[in-house]
Amino acid sequence: MSRPRITIVGTGLIGTSVGLGLAARTDRNYEIVGVDREQRHLRDAKKAGAIDRIAGSLEEAFDSAGLVIIAVPVQAARHILQEGGRYFADGAVVTDTCSTKSDILRWAAEHLPDHVQFVGGHPMAGKEKSGPGAAAGDLFRGATWAITPSPRADESAVSTVLGMVESLGANPLYIDPAEHDTYVAAVSHLPILVSVGLFRMIRDSRGWEDASLLAGPGFRDVTRLASGEPTMSRDIMATNRDAVLHWLDRFQEELSLIRHAIVEGGDAVGDLFKSTALDRDTFILNPPQRRMPDGPAAPSAQDQIGQLLGGGAYWKLKEMSDRLGKTDDDGSERRRQMAARDD
Amino acid sequence: MSRPRITIVGTGLIGTSVGLGLAARTDRNYEIVGVDREQRHLRDAKKAGAIDRIAGSLEEAFDSAGLVIIAVPVQAARHILQEGGRYFADGAVVTDTCSTKSDILRWAAEHLPDHVQFVGGHPMAGKEKSGPGAAAGDLFRGATWAITPSPRADESAVSTVLGMVESLGANPLYIDPAEHDTYVAAVSHLPILVSVGLFRMIRDSRGWEDASLLAGPGFRDVTRLASGEPTMSRDIMATNRDAVLHWLDRFQEELSLIRHAIVEGGDAVGDLFKSTALDRDTFILNPPQRRMPDGPAAPSAQDQIGQLLGGGAYWKLKEMSDRLGKTDDDGSERRRQMAARDD
Repeated sequence: MSRPRITIVGTGLIGTSVGLGLAARTDRNYEIVGVDREQRHLRDAKKAGAIDRIAGSLEEAFDSAGLVIIAVPVQAARHILQEGGRYFADGAVVTDTCSTKSDILRWAAEHLPDHVQFVGGHPMAGKEKSGPGAAAGDLFRGATWAITPSPRADESAVSTVLGMVESLGANPLYIDPAEHDTYVAAVSHLPILVSVGLFRMIRDSRGWEDASLLAGPGFRDVTRLASGEPTMSRDIMATNRDAVLHWLDRFQEELSLIRHAIVEGGDAVGDLFKSTALDRDTFILNPPQRRMPDGPAAPSAQDQIGQLLGGGAYWKLKEMSDRLGKTDDDGSERRRQMAARDD
Repeated sequence: MSRPRITIVGTGLIGTSVGLGLAARTDRNYEIVGVDREQRHLRDAKKAGAIDRIAGSLEEAFDSAGLVIIAVPVQAARHILQEGGRYFADGAVVTDTCSTKSDILRWAAEHLPDHVQFVGGHPMAGKEKSGPGAAAGDLFRGATWAITPSPRADESAVSTVLGMVESLGANPLYIDPAEHDTYVAAVSHLPILVSVGLFRMIRDSRGWEDASLLAGPGFRDVTRLASGEPTMSRDIMATNRDAVLHWLDRFQEELSLIRHAIVEGGDAVGDLFKSTALDRDTFILNPPQRRMPDGPAAPSAQDQIGQLLGGGAYWKLKEMSDRLGKTDDDGSERRRQMAARDD
């Protein structure tokens, strides 16, 4: 009997980091297979030990794979689901790491056969540099990992993805795909536009040559996202357009309010800086508490897929499930908060 | 004969870091005195070894001080110059670390007696946290340190400040105060507003509680400057208002252009992300070259003030001066570039 198989599609920063994290488990009983259009990335990922074997095609990559992790820009993921749908093994669990979730869940429903289980995912992690060279097995440690199961996904499929997420040291967060897209438009996608716009505007100004000499760590931080993977950013704007534009408009209004306060002078500007610094320090020092997922969590003992991540992960999942069974939280608080959306 | 004395006014992040850097010199022949309204900061700075002695008043702090470093928000610096003017020792060199330079040079001309030499300064360094607890002796290593001598300052005064800057591992950059203020408005002050506006807007939205769970390292980086010292930021906006508003308007126009591209769809958005990532990566990998200062640099051997930073620093300055004597650069290139300003 061959070892269980995990396949990673896309060996950039995220895919390679997932591979490194999963490969590092000393108790692992699975093989990690990689597939990518970029042969150089594949070779680098293999050299780094993130994958055990390179597959030459989606058909070869998906053959007998119990868990498939799609780690490519979201519009390329659509192509993978379309092309790869027929190659997935019976009972395969498919997840992804894409930046937006509504479209990919729709595509999964369209293209995946009934015998394949889709559980969407999105790790809130990243780095200034992209590509497998920047990957790290601990990239996701402490990060939130959004989980958006397809309505059709069963408990054991969700457990498998949860096991992977926890195995990488991340904190799983169940969330509705539309809610996810609205919120990440604010905290992740708008910041990309802000970074890009700021860098572009100053870079294109005639003073750049001298101004750049004075650019310190603050400028570097605020414009960091402008170095992000361009295809990923493009796909984000294409698949989350309305939410991004909504937040962009609100941001422009906020800037206009600040402009007004600066022109008026007086205490308003100082008060704004003071209250914002206080609120941000609070956010950094006491990050919002991650609620335990309130969905299904435990694989049954005989579930082979649920054991893909090894016995340790299985017992961890079992234990987590027991804890969940004891909590009073039925998710109503979360749903109440979500209902209080911005209009 | 008592040891030469260096006085630091303000023992926050910057003042304490300067003290730590200067105190670390094993060959130092000077005493470092600190003064601050915040007694807690003073005690922390002394405990950290950034200052040798605490002065109870400006009069006591400035008594016999050959070099005075004013490291407070710019509007507080005005007060120091007003109040302290009469206490400075004959021939004292006064410098500062404030974020804007035009106003402070005007105030120095107004309030300092003829026997005091003012050489403005501004290190392009910072940190998320403020206060002496965040200070580090190597904070300025590799950073640009803008230098704006008053027209009245003589060569030896400039040399003293240059010696301090190089002694802290920073790269001095001579620049006209008005040019400085225009450029830092773009690369430093506008980014503060962008960070503050972004954090404030999202923090005040009703979705914050859930959105904050999804906020990753990108959000943290882009909003880092929102945690900056509020008084410093307020004073920046008050003393560099027109330049900041100019760049803020340009930034808003840039955002509107990006919005238009997203609405239109097509290749424009992807092309924008691609070219911006390329330009930023180039900027990060090959930072613009720091030209050697083209102003005066060498103290005469018998100049006591020039020797404040110890024999080592003196010989370093001498050597630098010899190097400068050999270069062909008469500063015309820098002036040409500066003339190509944005209107």
